[in-house]
Amino acid sequence: MKTIEILKNDGRARQGKLLTEHGNIDTPVFMPVGTQGIVKAMTHKELEEMGVTMILANAYHLYLRPGDDLIRRLGGIHKFSGWKGAMLTDSGGYQIFSLGVLREIKEDGVLFQSHIDGSRHFLTPEKMVKVQENIGADIAMCLDECVSYPSSYEYTNDSVDLTTRWAKRCREAKTEDGQKLFGIIQGGFYEDLRLKSAEDLLGMDFDGYAIGGLSVGEPKSHMWDMVDVVIDLLPKDKPRYMMGVGMPEDLLNGVKRGIDMFDCIIPTRLARNGTLFTWDGKMNLKNARFTEDARPIDETCSCYTCRTFSRAYLRHLLVAHELTSFYLNTIHNVFFYMEFMKRIRESIESGSFEVFSQEFKAKYEGGEYHDERSVCSGS
Amino acid sequence: MKTIEILKNDGRARQGKLLTEHGNIDTPVFMPVGTQGIVKAMTHKELEEMGVTMILANAYHLYLRPGDDLIRRLGGIHKFSGWKGAMLTDSGGYQIFSLGVLREIKEDGVLFQSHIDGSRHFLTPEKMVKVQENIGADIAMCLDECVSYPSSYEYTNDSVDLTTRWAKRCREAKTEDGQKLFGIIQGGFYEDLRLKSAEDLLGMDFDGYAIGGLSVGEPKSHMWDMVDVVIDLLPKDKPRYMMGVGMPEDLLNGVKRGIDMFDCIIPTRLARNGTLFTWDGKMNLKNARFTEDARPIDETCSCYTCRTFSRAYLRHLLVAHELTSFYLNTIHNVFFYMEFMKRIRESIESGSFEVFSQEFKAKYEGGEYHDERSVCSGS
Repeated sequence: MKTIEILKNDGRARQGKLLTEHGNIDTPVFMPVGTQGIVKAMTHKELEEMGVTMILANAYHLYLRPGDDLIRRLGGIHKFSGWKGAMLTDSGGYQIFSLGVLREIKEDGVLFQSHIDGSRHFLTPEKMVKVQENIGADIAMCLDECVSYPSSYEYTNDSVDLTTRWAKRCREAKTEDGQKLFGIIQGGFYEDLRLKSAEDLLGMDFDGYAIGGLSVGEPKSHMWDMVDVVIDLLPKDKPRYMMGVGMPEDLLNGVKRGIDMFDCIIPTRLARNGTLFTWDGKMNLKNARFTEDARPIDETCSCYTCRTFSRAYLRHLLVAHELTSFYLNTIHNVFFYMEFMKRIRESIESGSFEVFSQEFKAKYEGGEYHDERSVCSGS
Repeated sequence: MKTIEILKNDGRARQGKLLTEHGNIDTPVFMPVGTQGIVKAMTHKELEEMGVTMILANAYHLYLRPGDDLIRRLGGIHKFSGWKGAMLTDSGGYQIFSLGVLREIKEDGVLFQSHIDGSRHFLTPEKMVKVQENIGADIAMCLDECVSYPSSYEYTNDSVDLTTRWAKRCREAKTEDGQKLFGIIQGGFYEDLRLKSAEDLLGMDFDGYAIGGLSVGEPKSHMWDMVDVVIDLLPKDKPRYMMGVGMPEDLLNGVKRGIDMFDCIIPTRLARNGTLFTWDGKMNLKNARFTEDARPIDETCSCYTCRTFSRAYLRHLLVAHELTSFYLNTIHNVFFYMEFMKRIRESIESGSFEVFSQEFKAKYEGGEYHDERSVCSGS
């Protein structure tokens, strides 16, 4: 069964529809992260109103608590969480390696301790397929090993081979329950290992392909080199997903190369820290210069926050640690990302993606608020 | 200028309209607490949709940060915060005595240190009138001393006299800027001091009268004794406000005695702690028995939270410390309070308040979830 329909190409950029049981998702799509099946500081209705059609939940967190069995008994993640749009679960690999403790990677799987209660868990590829089928999102991901940056060639080579063997086991463990399963290309920052990983996985006929292990602290140019080396190998009739990315400029650079799907904690996490996206760059709301600024965050933005509140008041709520601050700032950033993706799709449709991209970058990177740097620390 | 119109009496219970520059407010009214001009974990639109017409903000907090001068420069609290409904500011007295440190009460005013940065402040009755005029809510309160429970007769007696002198100074300091000013009856838990306080203040012709210094740890029966001793002295054509109260049963007991206005942190604070109000009593969502409970919090409730989420999922979000948990639980509790006040008003209109009150108490106090006790710790 088809997973994506490509409707329009503009250079290598693609505009299409990801076909899911919870709607046809306009691509390129950005998925806000909703670890527990809900985006932090957001309600579903807020997201729906802003045009969010797909979110990412974390299988690792849901497996540990409340447990995938419980979610299955209660009808699956859509019924359990109340989210009516599409959903993807990551495999848990990234979280096991970044949040878990005392891990040991074995041929059969990975041993780790819960970051919640210290309990010990052994997860295999088969088990993570089962966990994700129990959770029941529209798309599941293979268990992979996400190597840190930098890692040696030897370590990365062995890791790619392990990820390939795990991918094969995931593919075989998958039952016919309607859920799609994506393979994840790894290979660290070695071009030949990225190539090997891609070639290994392409033979397994996954429903889609992700590029993983990026945005882990490497220079940006390395990241794009790793995308460039594999992107044209990927089948044109399957979705391509760049995991854990990114900033607006990263989304442009990914779309330009033919990526269809993105996720990142950036818009939501930065919102909670008071960093807000505008078409004139990103703004650090804590800056004292906004103390008496009666203008909205972005005068061209039509989100609820910009229609209702001034920078001065939003800054006050942030400084006073008011809970509503998280909510209002998150609304703005998610709205910005959704509007940004919409304009990207429209520009592909009208064959003007490159113009849009250049114009956006000139305004955004030269904007008066583009005065700070932030790093996406993964999902 | 009139401050309230009483439309209907049912026993001593009154239904009417509080007249403000931000709408005519149906009374009896419950004001959710919005310390910074916004209710914690709520947006204004959420509150408006739920029928919240009036909120309470804290002059103490706004004076310390961002400062009443700044709020005035930015057009007053309504323009600053974006809240379009009515608003009342408390005088700061309660917060100075409960949050401030190193305080010294002098004839002229009160010396205290900020709980935020330790800075020293001296606030006089005149200054607190000015601060509240700068903030610009619809209703301001006199600076008073709120004595703790228990306090000696002598201390309370002196305190009442001071509060009376301060009230007189507040009355004289008030300028003609459209803001209403309420006096606050104190007197601790001594009937004759309550009487004295009421008689002193009634001569000053305030726009409304509050009963303060209650719900500070005393037995409930003491609280109602203190209301009973003064309530019939209060002018029938002015609003009566019981400060910092309370639980649903308290609202019934207050309305029954002729109170028009209430405020309390109870519905919002308990929501954040996972205690939710239902017509069958209040529910501790942390209770393990809700782990797989697919029902909404209250099957008769039509709030967004009950229309969308199960107890099981809401419990999961609470246990996982998800930010959205605060929002969803607060929506439910505020909705419950608004619906409760609406039914109270309707029952007065139809002359059936006492029947409503009895039926509510029987169901609520006998309800299966009424299994825990909580104390309102003031606003």
